[in-house]
Amino acid sequence: MTRKILQVEKEVEVRFSEVDSMGIVWHGNYALYFEDARELFGKTYHLEYLYMYEMGFYAPLVELKINYKKPATLNDRLRVICTYRETDAAKIIFDYEIRHASSNDLVASGHSVQVFLDMQHQLVWQTPPFYTEWKKINGLC
Amino acid sequence: MTRKILQVEKEVEVRFSEVDSMGIVWHGNYALYFEDARELFGKTYHLEYLYMYEMGFYAPLVELKINYKKPATLNDRLRVICTYRETDAAKIIFDYEIRHASSNDLVASGHSVQVFLDMQHQLVWQTPPFYTEWKKINGLC
Amino acid sequence: MTRKILQVEKEVEVRFSEVDSMGIVWHGNYALYFEDARELFGKTYHLEYLYMYEMGFYAPLVELKINYKKPATLNDRLRVICTYRETDAAKIIFDYEIRHASSNDLVASGHSVQVFLDMQHQLVWQTPPFYTEWKKINGLC
Amino acid sequence: MTRKILQVEKEVEVRFSEVDSMGIVWHGNYALYFEDARELFGKTYHLEYLYMYEMGFYAPLVELKINYKKPATLNDRLRVICTYRETDAAKIIFDYEIRHASSNDLVASGHSVQVFLDMQHQLVWQTPPFYTEWKKINGLC
Repeated sequence: MTRKILQVEKEVEVRFSEVDSMGIVWHGNYALYFEDARELFGKTYHLEYLYMYEMGFYAPLVELKINYKKPATLNDRLRVICTYRETDAAKIIFDYEIRHASSNDLVASGHSVQVFLDMQHQLVWQTPPFYTEWKKINGLC
Repeated sequence: MTRKILQVEKEVEVRFSEVDSMGIVWHGNYALYFEDARELFGKTYHLEYLYMYEMGFYAPLVELKINYKKPATLNDRLRVICTYRETDAAKIIFDYEIRHASSNDLVASGHSVQVFLDMQHQLVWQTPPFYTEWKKINGLC
Repeated sequence: MTRKILQVEKEVEVRFSEVDSMGIVWHGNYALYFEDARELFGKTYHLEYLYMYEMGFYAPLVELKINYKKPATLNDRLRVICTYRETDAAKIIFDYEIRHASSNDLVASGHSVQVFLDMQHQLVWQTPPFYTEWKKINGLC
Repeated sequence: MTRKILQVEKEVEVRFSEVDSMGIVWHGNYALYFEDARELFGKTYHLEYLYMYEMGFYAPLVELKINYKKPATLNDRLRVICTYRETDAAKIIFDYEIRHASSNDLVASGHSVQVFLDMQHQLVWQTPPFYTEWKKINGLC
Protein backbone atom coordinates (compact mmCIF):
# COMPACT_ATOMS: atom_id res chain seq x y z
CA MET A 1 0.00 0.00 0.00
CA THR A 2 1.39 3.37 -0.94
CA ARG A 3 0.95 6.54 1.01
CA LYS A 4 -0.46 9.51 -0.66
CA ILE A 5 1.76 12.55 -1.05
CA LEU A 6 0.00 15.90 -0.82
CA GLN A 7 2.00 18.46 -2.71
CA VAL A 8 1.58 21.65 -4.69
CA GLU A 9 3.91 23.64 -6.83
CA LYS A 10 3.74 27.39 -7.37
CA GLU A 11 5.82 29.26 -9.90
CA VAL A 12 7.00 32.72 -8.87
CA GLU A 13 9.07 35.29 -10.74
CA VAL A 14 11.59 37.33 -8.79
CA ARG A 15 10.62 41.00 -8.69
CA PHE A 16 13.00 43.95 -8.85
CA SER A 17 11.94 45.06 -5.39
CA GLU A 18 12.75 41.63 -3.93
CA VAL A 19 16.41 41.81 -4.90
CA ASP A 20 18.91 43.38 -2.50
CA SER A 21 22.02 45.48 -3.06
CA MET A 22 24.06 42.30 -3.65
CA GLY A 23 21.86 41.63 -6.67
CA ILE A 24 20.25 38.57 -5.11
CA VAL A 25 16.85 37.90 -3.54
CA TRP A 26 16.78 39.34 -0.02
CA HIS A 27 16.69 36.37 2.36
CA GLY A 28 13.51 37.46 4.13
CA ASN A 29 11.55 37.21 0.87
CA TYR A 30 11.71 33.43 0.94
CA ALA A 31 9.08 33.57 3.68
CA LEU A 32 6.92 35.21 1.02
CA TYR A 33 7.53 32.48 -1.54
CA PHE A 34 6.83 29.76 1.03
CA GLU A 35 3.57 31.49 1.89
CA ASP A 36 2.58 31.71 -1.78
CA ALA A 37 2.91 27.93 -2.03
CA ARG A 38 1.22 27.32 1.33
CA GLU A 39 -1.80 29.34 0.24
CA LEU A 40 -2.00 27.37 -2.98
CA PHE A 41 -1.91 24.18 -0.90
CA GLY A 42 -4.83 25.45 1.18
CA LYS A 43 -6.87 26.19 -1.93
CA THR A 44 -5.97 22.95 -3.68
CA TYR A 45 -6.66 20.65 -0.73
CA HIS A 46 -9.35 22.75 0.95
CA LEU A 47 -7.42 23.65 4.07
CA GLU A 48 -7.83 27.41 3.87
CA TYR A 49 -7.59 29.69 6.90
CA LEU A 50 -11.20 30.67 6.40
CA TYR A 51 -12.37 27.05 6.47
CA MET A 52 -10.45 26.35 9.67
CA TYR A 53 -11.86 29.50 11.19
CA GLU A 54 -15.40 28.36 10.32
CA MET A 55 -14.56 25.07 12.01
CA GLY A 56 -13.64 27.05 15.14
CA PHE A 57 -9.86 27.22 14.92
CA TYR A 58 -6.99 29.54 14.17
CA ALA A 59 -3.81 28.00 12.81
CA PRO A 60 -0.95 30.43 13.48
CA LEU A 61 2.58 29.79 12.36
CA VAL A 62 4.84 28.96 15.31
CA GLU A 63 8.01 27.93 13.51
CA LEU A 64 9.69 28.79 10.25
CA LYS A 65 13.04 27.47 9.08
CA ILE A 66 14.81 28.38 5.87
CA ASN A 67 18.03 26.92 4.49
CA TYR A 68 19.68 28.92 1.73
CA LYS A 69 21.49 26.84 -0.88
CA LYS A 70 22.03 29.00 -3.93
CA PRO A 71 21.19 32.61 -4.69
CA ALA A 72 18.30 33.63 -6.93
CA THR A 73 18.46 36.81 -8.98
CA LEU A 74 16.24 39.26 -10.82
CA ASN A 75 13.76 37.75 -13.25
CA ASP A 76 14.59 34.18 -12.20
CA ARG A 77 11.59 31.94 -12.42
CA LEU A 78 11.35 29.76 -9.33
CA ARG A 79 9.31 26.65 -8.58
CA VAL A 80 8.15 26.59 -4.97
CA ILE A 81 7.19 23.07 -3.90
CA CYS A 82 5.14 22.67 -0.72
CA THR A 83 4.70 19.17 0.69
CA TYR A 84 2.47 18.18 3.59
CA ARG A 85 4.38 16.30 6.30
CA GLU A 86 2.40 13.71 8.23
CA THR A 87 2.30 14.04 11.98
CA ASP A 88 0.22 12.65 14.85
CA ALA A 89 0.55 15.93 16.70
CA ALA A 90 -2.13 18.61 16.54
CA LYS A 91 -0.01 20.51 14.03
CA ILE A 92 0.18 21.37 10.36
CA ILE A 93 3.70 20.89 9.06
CA PHE A 94 4.89 21.72 5.57
CA ASP A 95 8.24 21.09 3.90
CA TYR A 96 9.37 23.42 1.15
CA GLU A 97 11.79 23.38 -1.72
CA ILE A 98 12.52 26.26 -4.03
CA ARG A 99 14.15 25.39 -7.35
CA HIS A 100 15.24 27.36 -10.38
CA ALA A 101 12.57 26.65 -12.98
CA SER A 102 15.08 26.19 -15.78
CA SER A 103 18.04 24.39 -14.18
CA ASN A 104 16.13 22.66 -11.37
CA ASP A 105 18.93 23.73 -9.00
CA LEU A 106 17.91 23.86 -5.36
CA VAL A 107 17.74 27.47 -4.20
CA ALA A 108 16.33 26.94 -0.71
CA SER A 109 14.56 24.44 1.49
CA GLY A 110 12.72 24.71 4.77
CA HIS A 111 9.68 23.92 6.82
CA SER A 112 6.88 25.59 8.72
CA VAL A 113 4.84 24.47 11.72
CA GLN A 114 1.35 25.66 12.60
CA VAL A 115 -0.62 24.87 15.74
CA PHE A 116 -4.31 25.20 16.53
CA LEU A 117 -5.87 27.81 18.78
CA ASP A 118 -9.52 27.83 19.75
CA MET A 119 -11.68 30.94 19.49
CA GLN A 120 -10.47 32.00 22.96
CA HIS A 121 -6.91 31.89 21.59
CA GLN A 122 -6.05 28.90 23.76
CA LEU A 123 -3.67 26.26 22.42
CA VAL A 124 -5.42 23.04 21.41
CA TRP A 125 -3.46 19.90 22.28
CA GLN A 126 -5.74 17.34 20.67
CA THR A 127 -6.21 17.10 16.93
CA PRO A 128 -9.41 18.99 16.06
CA PRO A 129 -12.14 16.72 14.62
CA PHE A 130 -12.24 18.65 11.33
CA TYR A 131 -8.52 18.04 10.86
CA THR A 132 -8.85 14.26 11.52
CA GLU A 133 -11.65 14.28 8.98
CA TRP A 134 -9.52 16.22 6.51
CA LYS A 135 -6.72 13.68 6.86
CA LYS A 136 -9.15 10.80 6.20
CA ILE A 137 -10.59 12.46 3.11
CA ASN A 138 -7.08 12.91 1.80
CA GLY A 139 -6.06 9.31 2.42
CA LEU A 140 -3.62 10.05 5.23
CA CYS A 141 -5.13 7.86 7.95
CA MET B 1 -1.59 87.55 12.77
CA THR B 2 0.49 84.54 11.93
CA ARG B 3 -0.89 81.22 10.87
CA LYS B 4 0.08 78.18 12.78
CA ILE B 5 2.12 75.55 10.96
CA LEU B 6 1.38 71.99 12.00
CA GLN B 7 4.42 69.88 11.29
CA VAL B 8 6.22 66.83 12.58
CA GLU B 9 9.59 65.35 11.82
CA LYS B 10 10.45 61.68 12.00
CA GLU B 11 13.95 60.30 11.68
CA VAL B 12 14.30 56.98 9.86
CA GLU B 13 17.36 54.90 9.13
CA VAL B 14 17.56 53.13 5.79
CA ARG B 15 17.43 49.36 6.24
CA PHE B 16 19.38 46.82 4.21
CA SER B 17 16.14 45.29 2.93
CA GLU B 18 14.96 48.70 1.68
CA VAL B 19 17.89 49.12 -0.70
CA ASP B 20 17.65 47.75 -4.24
CA SER B 21 20.20 46.17 -6.54
CA MET B 22 21.40 49.64 -7.60
CA GLY B 23 22.45 50.19 -4.00
CA ILE B 24 19.83 52.88 -3.40
CA VAL B 25 16.51 52.95 -1.57
CA TRP B 26 13.85 51.26 -3.72
CA HIS B 27 11.46 54.02 -4.83
CA GLY B 28 8.36 52.35 -3.42
CA ASN B 29 9.78 52.54 0.09
CA TYR B 30 9.29 56.29 0.21
CA ALA B 31 5.58 55.57 0.68
CA LEU B 32 6.68 53.84 3.87
CA TYR B 33 8.71 56.80 5.10
CA PHE B 34 5.86 59.20 4.34
CA GLU B 35 3.53 56.95 6.32
CA ASP B 36 5.91 56.84 9.26
CA ALA B 37 5.75 60.63 9.44
CA ARG B 38 2.00 60.76 8.84
CA GLU B 39 1.41 58.39 11.77
CA LEU B 40 3.60 60.52 13.98
CA PHE B 41 1.52 63.53 12.94
CA GLY B 42 -1.63 61.67 13.93
CA LYS B 43 -0.23 60.89 17.36
CA THR B 44 1.22 64.34 17.92
CA TYR B 45 -1.89 66.30 16.91
CA HIS B 46 -4.47 63.71 17.92
CA LEU B 47 -5.74 62.87 14.45
CA GLU B 48 -5.26 59.11 14.61
CA TYR B 49 -7.21 56.69 12.44
CA LEU B 50 -8.77 55.22 15.56
CA TYR B 51 -10.02 58.60 16.71
CA MET B 52 -11.58 59.36 13.32
CA TYR B 53 -13.15 55.93 13.32
CA GLU B 54 -14.67 56.59 16.74
CA MET B 55 -16.03 59.84 15.31
CA GLY B 56 -17.70 57.80 12.58
CA PHE B 57 -15.32 58.22 9.67
CA TYR B 58 -12.72 56.40 7.63
CA ALA B 59 -10.01 58.52 6.01
CA PRO B 60 -8.53 56.49 3.14
CA LEU B 61 -5.67 57.73 1.01
CA VAL B 62 -6.84 58.68 -2.48
CA GLU B 63 -3.71 60.27 -3.88
CA LEU B 64 0.00 59.91 -3.35
CA LYS B 65 2.69 61.76 -5.23
CA ILE B 66 6.41 61.37 -4.81
CA ASN B 67 9.19 63.38 -6.46
CA TYR B 68 12.64 61.85 -6.29
CA LYS B 69 15.48 64.35 -6.04
CA LYS B 70 18.55 62.52 -4.83
CA PRO B 71 19.18 58.87 -3.98
CA ALA B 72 19.43 57.61 -0.41
CA THR B 73 21.62 54.63 0.44
CA LEU B 74 22.17 52.03 3.14
CA ASN B 75 22.46 53.35 6.70
CA ASP B 76 21.59 56.89 5.65
CA ARG B 77 19.69 58.69 8.36
CA LEU B 78 16.78 60.58 6.89
CA ARG B 79 14.55 63.30 8.30
CA VAL B 80 10.97 62.94 7.10
CA ILE B 81 9.05 66.19 7.51
CA CYS B 82 5.27 66.05 7.28
CA THR B 83 3.37 69.34 7.08
CA TYR B 84 -0.39 69.79 7.21
CA ARG B 85 -1.73 71.72 4.21
CA GLU B 86 -4.79 73.85 4.85
CA THR B 87 -7.82 73.25 2.68
CA ASP B 88 -11.50 74.11 2.76
CA ALA B 89 -12.36 70.77 1.15
CA ALA B 90 -13.37 67.75 3.18
CA LYS B 91 -9.87 66.37 2.84
CA ILE B 92 -6.70 65.82 4.78
CA ILE B 93 -3.68 66.90 2.77
CA PHE B 94 -0.06 66.51 3.81
CA ASP B 95 3.13 67.74 2.17
CA TYR B 96 6.32 65.81 2.72
CA GLU B 97 10.02 66.42 2.48
CA ILE B 98 12.72 63.85 3.05
CA ARG B 99 16.19 65.16 3.78
CA HIS B 100 19.53 63.60 4.56
CA ALA B 101 19.96 64.09 8.30
CA SER B 102 23.60 65.12 8.00
CA SER B 103 23.77 67.20 4.80
CA ASN B 104 20.16 68.43 4.81
CA ASP B 105 20.06 67.63 1.07
CA LEU B 106 16.57 67.09 -0.29
CA VAL B 107 16.04 63.42 -1.11
CA ALA B 108 12.37 63.48 -2.01
CA SER B 109 9.22 65.53 -1.71
CA GLY B 110 5.56 64.78 -2.23
CA HIS B 111 2.05 64.96 -0.92
CA SER B 112 -0.87 62.76 0.05
CA VAL B 113 -4.62 63.35 -0.01
CA GLN B 114 -7.18 61.59 2.18
CA VAL B 115 -10.95 61.87 1.96
CA PHE B 116 -13.67 60.93 4.42
CA LEU B 117 -16.01 57.96 4.14
CA ASP B 118 -18.88 57.35 6.49
CA MET B 119 -19.49 53.97 8.13
CA GLN B 120 -21.39 52.85 5.02
CA HIS B 121 -18.25 53.59 2.99
CA GLN B 122 -19.94 56.51 1.24
CA LEU B 123 -17.87 59.54 0.34
CA VAL B 124 -18.55 62.53 2.58
CA TRP B 125 -18.57 65.88 0.75
CA GLN B 126 -18.97 68.14 3.73
CA THR B 127 -16.31 68.60 6.34
CA PRO B 128 -17.17 66.31 9.28
CA PRO B 129 -17.91 68.24 12.51
CA PHE B 130 -15.07 66.56 14.39
CA TYR B 131 -12.61 67.77 11.73
CA THR B 132 -13.89 71.38 11.90
CA GLU B 133 -13.47 71.12 15.65
CA TRP B 134 -9.96 69.71 15.25
CA LYS B 135 -9.00 72.62 13.00
CA LYS B 136 -10.29 75.12 15.57
CA ILE B 137 -8.42 73.49 18.42
CA ASN B 138 -5.26 73.67 16.36
CA GLY B 139 -5.69 77.31 15.46
CA LEU B 140 -6.43 76.77 11.78
CA CYS B 141 -9.80 78.48 11.60
CA MET C 1 -2.99 58.02 -40.12
CA THR C 2 -3.31 56.36 -36.78
CA ARG C 3 -0.81 56.57 -34.00
CA LYS C 4 0.51 53.42 -32.49
CA ILE C 5 -0.31 52.76 -28.85
CA LEU C 6 2.43 50.98 -26.94
CA GLN C 7 0.85 49.14 -24.07
CA VAL C 8 1.33 46.03 -21.96
CA GLU C 9 -0.86 44.31 -19.46
CA LYS C 10 0.40 42.29 -16.52
CA GLU C 11 -1.82 40.19 -14.29
CA VAL C 12 -0.93 40.10 -10.60
CA GLU C 13 -2.53 38.27 -7.72
CA VAL C 14 -2.73 40.03 -4.37
CA ARG C 15 -0.57 38.28 -1.78
CA PHE C 16 -1.41 37.84 1.89
CA SER C 17 1.64 39.89 2.88
CA GLU C 18 0.50 42.78 0.67
CA VAL C 19 -2.77 43.26 2.55
CA ASP C 20 -2.88 45.56 5.58
CA SER C 21 -4.79 45.40 8.84
CA MET C 22 -7.83 46.94 7.15
CA GLY C 23 -7.95 43.85 4.92
CA ILE C 24 -7.03 45.80 1.79
CA VAL C 25 -3.86 46.14 -0.26
CA TRP C 26 -1.45 48.48 1.52
CA HIS C 27 -1.24 51.62 -0.62
CA GLY C 28 2.53 51.49 -1.04
CA ASN C 29 2.27 48.16 -2.83
CA TYR C 30 0.78 49.78 -5.91
CA ALA C 31 4.28 51.06 -6.68
CA LEU C 32 5.17 47.37 -6.88
CA TYR C 33 2.36 46.55 -9.29
CA PHE C 34 3.23 49.54 -11.48
CA GLU C 35 6.82 48.35 -11.57
CA ASP C 36 5.78 44.82 -12.52
CA ALA C 37 4.01 46.25 -15.56
CA ARG C 38 6.82 48.69 -16.38
CA GLU C 39 9.33 45.85 -16.43
CA LEU C 40 7.09 43.86 -18.73
CA PHE C 41 6.94 46.90 -20.99
CA GLY C 42 10.74 47.05 -21.08
CA LYS C 43 10.96 43.40 -22.06
CA THR C 44 8.17 43.58 -24.60
CA TYR C 45 9.38 46.72 -26.39
CA HIS C 46 13.09 46.26 -25.73
CA LEU C 47 13.56 49.25 -23.44
CA GLU C 48 15.16 47.42 -20.52
CA TYR C 49 17.39 49.13 -17.97
CA LEU C 50 20.27 46.97 -19.10
CA TYR C 51 19.87 48.05 -22.71
CA MET C 52 19.78 51.73 -21.76
CA TYR C 53 22.84 51.22 -19.60
CA GLU C 54 24.69 49.65 -22.53
CA MET C 55 23.70 52.70 -24.56
CA GLY C 56 25.33 54.86 -21.89
CA PHE C 57 22.38 56.01 -19.83
CA TYR C 58 20.63 55.52 -16.54
CA ALA C 59 16.90 56.18 -16.42
CA PRO C 60 15.94 56.82 -12.79
CA LEU C 61 12.39 57.45 -11.70
CA VAL C 62 11.86 61.09 -10.72
CA GLU C 63 8.10 61.16 -10.25
CA LEU C 64 5.44 58.69 -9.22
CA LYS C 65 1.76 59.48 -8.79
CA ILE C 66 -0.93 57.08 -7.67
CA ASN C 67 -4.66 57.69 -7.45
CA TYR C 68 -6.64 55.20 -5.42
CA LYS C 69 -10.14 54.50 -6.66
CA LYS C 70 -11.35 51.29 -5.10
CA PRO C 71 -9.74 48.90 -2.64
CA ALA C 72 -8.30 45.55 -3.67
CA THR C 73 -8.31 42.62 -1.28
CA LEU C 74 -6.66 39.26 -0.69
CA ASN C 75 -6.56 36.91 -3.67
CA ASP C 76 -7.97 39.53 -6.02
CA ARG C 77 -6.59 39.14 -9.49
CA LEU C 78 -5.61 42.51 -10.92
CA ARG C 79 -4.80 43.65 -14.45
CA VAL C 80 -2.06 46.26 -14.48
CA ILE C 81 -2.06 48.20 -17.73
CA CYS C 82 1.01 50.26 -18.58
CA THR C 83 0.80 52.68 -21.50
CA TYR C 84 3.64 54.69 -22.99
CA ARG C 85 2.87 58.44 -23.10
CA GLU C 86 4.43 60.35 -25.98
CA THR C 87 6.58 63.33 -25.12
CA ASP C 88 9.14 65.50 -26.84
CA ALA C 89 11.07 65.88 -23.62
CA ALA C 90 14.05 63.67 -22.78
CA LYS C 91 11.82 61.60 -20.53
CA ILE C 92 10.10 58.25 -20.34
CA ILE C 93 6.53 58.65 -19.13
CA PHE C 94 4.11 55.83 -18.43
CA ASP C 95 0.43 55.92 -17.51
CA TYR C 96 -1.01 53.10 -15.45
CA GLU C 97 -4.38 51.62 -14.74
CA ILE C 98 -5.08 48.79 -12.33
CA ARG C 99 -8.36 46.96 -12.78
CA HIS C 100 -10.05 44.05 -11.09
CA ALA C 101 -9.60 41.14 -13.52
CA SER C 102 -13.14 39.91 -13.09
CA SER C 103 -15.27 43.07 -12.77
CA ASN C 104 -12.97 45.41 -14.74
CA ASP C 105 -13.52 48.02 -11.99
CA LEU C 106 -10.82 50.64 -11.79
CA VAL C 107 -8.73 50.10 -8.66
CA ALA C 108 -6.04 52.71 -9.23
CA SER C 109 -4.45 54.90 -11.86
CA GLY C 110 -1.26 56.88 -12.01
CA HIS C 111 1.86 57.77 -13.89
CA SER C 112 5.64 57.67 -13.61
CA VAL C 113 8.34 59.87 -15.09
CA GLN C 114 11.94 58.85 -15.74
CA VAL C 115 14.79 61.07 -16.90
CA PHE C 116 18.17 60.23 -18.39
CA LEU C 117 21.50 60.49 -16.62
CA ASP C 118 24.83 59.93 -18.33
CA MET C 119 27.49 57.66 -16.86
CA GLN C 120 28.75 60.58 -14.76
CA HIS C 121 25.26 60.81 -13.25
CA GLN C 122 24.63 64.15 -14.93
CA LEU C 123 21.13 64.96 -16.14
CA VAL C 124 20.76 64.77 -19.92
CA TRP C 125 18.55 67.48 -21.42
CA GLN C 126 18.53 66.30 -24.99
CA THR C 127 16.88 63.10 -26.08
CA PRO C 128 19.59 60.42 -26.30
CA PRO C 129 20.11 59.10 -29.87
CA PHE C 130 19.20 55.54 -28.89
CA TYR C 131 15.84 56.78 -27.54
CA THR C 132 15.06 58.71 -30.76
CA GLU C 133 15.90 55.53 -32.64
CA TRP C 134 13.70 53.48 -30.32
CA LYS C 135 10.78 55.84 -30.95
CA LYS C 136 11.23 55.51 -34.72
CA ILE C 137 11.37 51.74 -34.61
CA ASN C 138 8.15 51.76 -32.63
CA GLY C 139 6.35 54.08 -35.04
CA LEU C 140 6.19 57.04 -32.68
CA CYS C 141 7.95 59.60 -34.84
CA MET D 1 37.02 33.00 34.68
CA THR D 2 33.94 34.34 33.04
CA ARG D 3 33.24 34.29 29.35
CA LYS D 4 32.35 37.47 27.62
CA ILE D 5 28.91 37.74 26.17
CA LEU D 6 28.69 39.74 22.96
CA GLN D 7 25.21 41.12 22.65
CA VAL D 8 23.35 44.08 21.24
CA GLU D 9 19.83 45.29 21.62
CA LYS D 10 17.90 47.23 19.01
CA GLU D 11 14.52 48.82 19.61
CA VAL D 12 12.08 48.75 16.72
CA GLU D 13 8.57 50.10 16.43
CA VAL D 14 6.03 48.09 14.46
CA ARG D 15 4.98 49.95 11.31
CA PHE D 16 1.50 49.99 9.82
CA SER D 17 2.77 48.32 6.66
CA GLU D 18 4.27 45.46 8.68
CA VAL D 19 0.94 44.39 10.13
CA ASP D 20 -1.20 41.86 8.26
CA SER D 21 -4.95 41.51 7.85
CA MET D 22 -5.16 39.68 11.21
CA GLY D 23 -3.88 42.87 12.83
CA ILE D 24 -0.56 41.32 13.82
CA VAL D 25 2.97 41.60 12.47
CA TRP D 26 3.29 39.50 9.31
CA HIS D 27 5.57 36.60 10.20
CA GLY D 28 8.09 37.29 7.43
CA ASN D 29 8.88 40.68 8.94
CA TYR D 30 10.70 39.10 11.86
CA ALA D 31 13.55 38.40 9.41
CA LEU D 32 13.71 42.18 9.08
CA TYR D 33 13.87 42.77 12.82
CA PHE D 34 16.57 40.12 13.22
CA GLU D 35 18.55 41.80 10.48
CA ASP D 36 18.20 45.21 12.13
CA ALA D 37 19.81 43.77 15.26
CA ARG D 38 22.45 41.84 13.32
CA GLU D 39 23.54 45.00 11.55
CA LEU D 40 23.80 46.81 14.85
CA PHE D 41 25.96 43.96 16.11
CA GLY D 42 28.24 44.37 13.10
CA LYS D 43 28.63 48.07 13.75
CA THR D 44 29.09 47.70 17.51
CA TYR D 45 31.68 44.92 17.37
CA HIS D 46 33.24 45.84 14.03
CA LEU D 47 32.11 42.78 12.08
CA GLU D 48 30.45 44.60 9.19
CA TYR D 49 29.94 43.03 5.78
CA LEU D 50 32.23 45.65 4.29
CA TYR D 51 35.04 44.80 6.70
CA MET D 52 34.74 41.08 5.93
CA TYR D 53 34.71 41.87 2.24
CA GLU D 54 37.89 43.91 2.62
CA MET D 55 39.40 40.91 4.39
CA GLY D 56 38.53 38.81 1.33
CA PHE D 57 35.33 37.10 2.40
CA TYR D 58 31.60 37.09 1.88
CA ALA D 59 29.43 35.89 4.77
CA PRO D 60 26.06 34.85 3.31
CA LEU D 61 23.21 33.64 5.46
CA VAL D 62 22.65 29.91 5.04
CA GLU D 63 20.09 29.24 7.75
CA LEU D 64 17.37 31.22 9.47
CA LYS D 65 15.00 29.89 12.08
CA ILE D 66 12.20 31.78 13.76
CA ASN D 67 9.94 30.63 16.58
CA TYR D 68 6.80 32.65 17.13
CA LYS D 69 5.66 32.91 20.74
CA LYS D 70 3.24 35.80 20.99
CA PRO D 71 1.86 38.21 18.41
CA ALA D 72 3.03 41.80 18.09
CA THR D 73 0.69 44.52 16.88
CA LEU D 74 0.70 48.02 15.46
CA ASN D 75 2.81 50.58 17.32
CA ASP D 76 4.23 47.97 19.67
CA ARG D 77 7.76 48.80 20.66
CA LEU D 78 9.96 45.73 20.49
CA ARG D 79 13.42 45.01 21.85
CA VAL D 80 15.42 42.82 19.49
CA ILE D 81 18.30 41.13 21.28
CA CYS D 82 21.05 39.60 19.17
CA THR D 83 23.63 37.40 20.91
CA TYR D 84 26.77 35.95 19.37
CA ARG D 85 26.95 32.17 19.79
CA GLU D 86 30.43 30.72 20.12
CA THR D 87 31.42 28.01 17.67
CA ASP D 88 34.63 26.37 16.51
CA ALA D 89 33.22 26.03 13.01
CA ALA D 90 33.95 28.56 10.29
CA LYS D 91 30.55 30.12 10.88
CA ILE D 92 28.91 33.17 12.38
CA ILE D 93 25.94 32.16 14.49
CA PHE D 94 23.55 34.54 16.21
CA ASP D 95 20.68 33.85 18.60
CA TYR D 96 17.79 36.27 18.73
CA GLU D 97 15.04 37.22 21.11
CA ILE D 98 12.32 39.72 20.44
CA ARG D 99 10.50 41.08 23.48
CA HIS D 100 7.74 43.60 24.02
CA ALA D 101 9.53 46.70 25.31
CA SER D 102 6.93 47.37 28.00
CA SER D 103 5.91 43.92 29.29
CA ASN D 104 9.16 42.10 28.43
CA ASP D 105 7.02 39.24 27.06
CA LEU D 106 8.82 37.03 24.59
CA VAL D 107 7.43 37.63 21.09
CA ALA D 108 9.82 35.47 19.09
CA SER D 109 13.17 33.74 19.23
CA GLY D 110 15.44 32.27 16.60
CA HIS D 111 18.90 31.97 15.17
CA SER D 112 20.85 32.60 11.99
CA VAL D 113 23.93 30.92 10.55
CA GLN D 114 26.39 32.50 8.13
CA VAL D 115 29.30 30.80 6.38
CA PHE D 116 32.34 32.23 4.61
CA LEU D 117 32.90 32.30 0.88
CA ASP D 118 36.11 33.46 -0.73
CA MET D 119 36.18 35.96 -3.57
CA GLN D 120 35.64 33.10 -6.04
CA HIS D 121 32.42 32.27 -4.15
CA GLN D 122 33.89 29.01 -2.87
CA LEU D 123 32.95 27.80 0.59
CA VAL D 124 35.72 28.22 3.14
CA TRP D 125 36.00 25.34 5.62
CA GLN D 126 38.70 26.78 7.84
CA THR D 127 38.16 29.78 10.05
CA PRO D 128 39.52 32.83 8.19
CA PRO D 129 42.48 34.47 9.99
CA PHE D 130 40.63 37.79 10.36
CA TYR D 131 37.81 35.98 12.17
CA THR D 132 40.19 34.21 14.59
CA GLU D 133 41.72 37.60 15.25
CA TRP D 134 38.29 39.14 15.78
CA LYS D 135 37.45 36.45 18.34
CA LYS D 136 40.67 37.11 20.24
CA ILE D 137 40.14 40.85 20.32
CA ASN D 138 36.68 40.23 21.72
CA GLY D 139 37.88 37.85 24.43
CA LEU D 140 36.32 34.73 22.94
CA CYS D 141 39.46 32.59 22.64
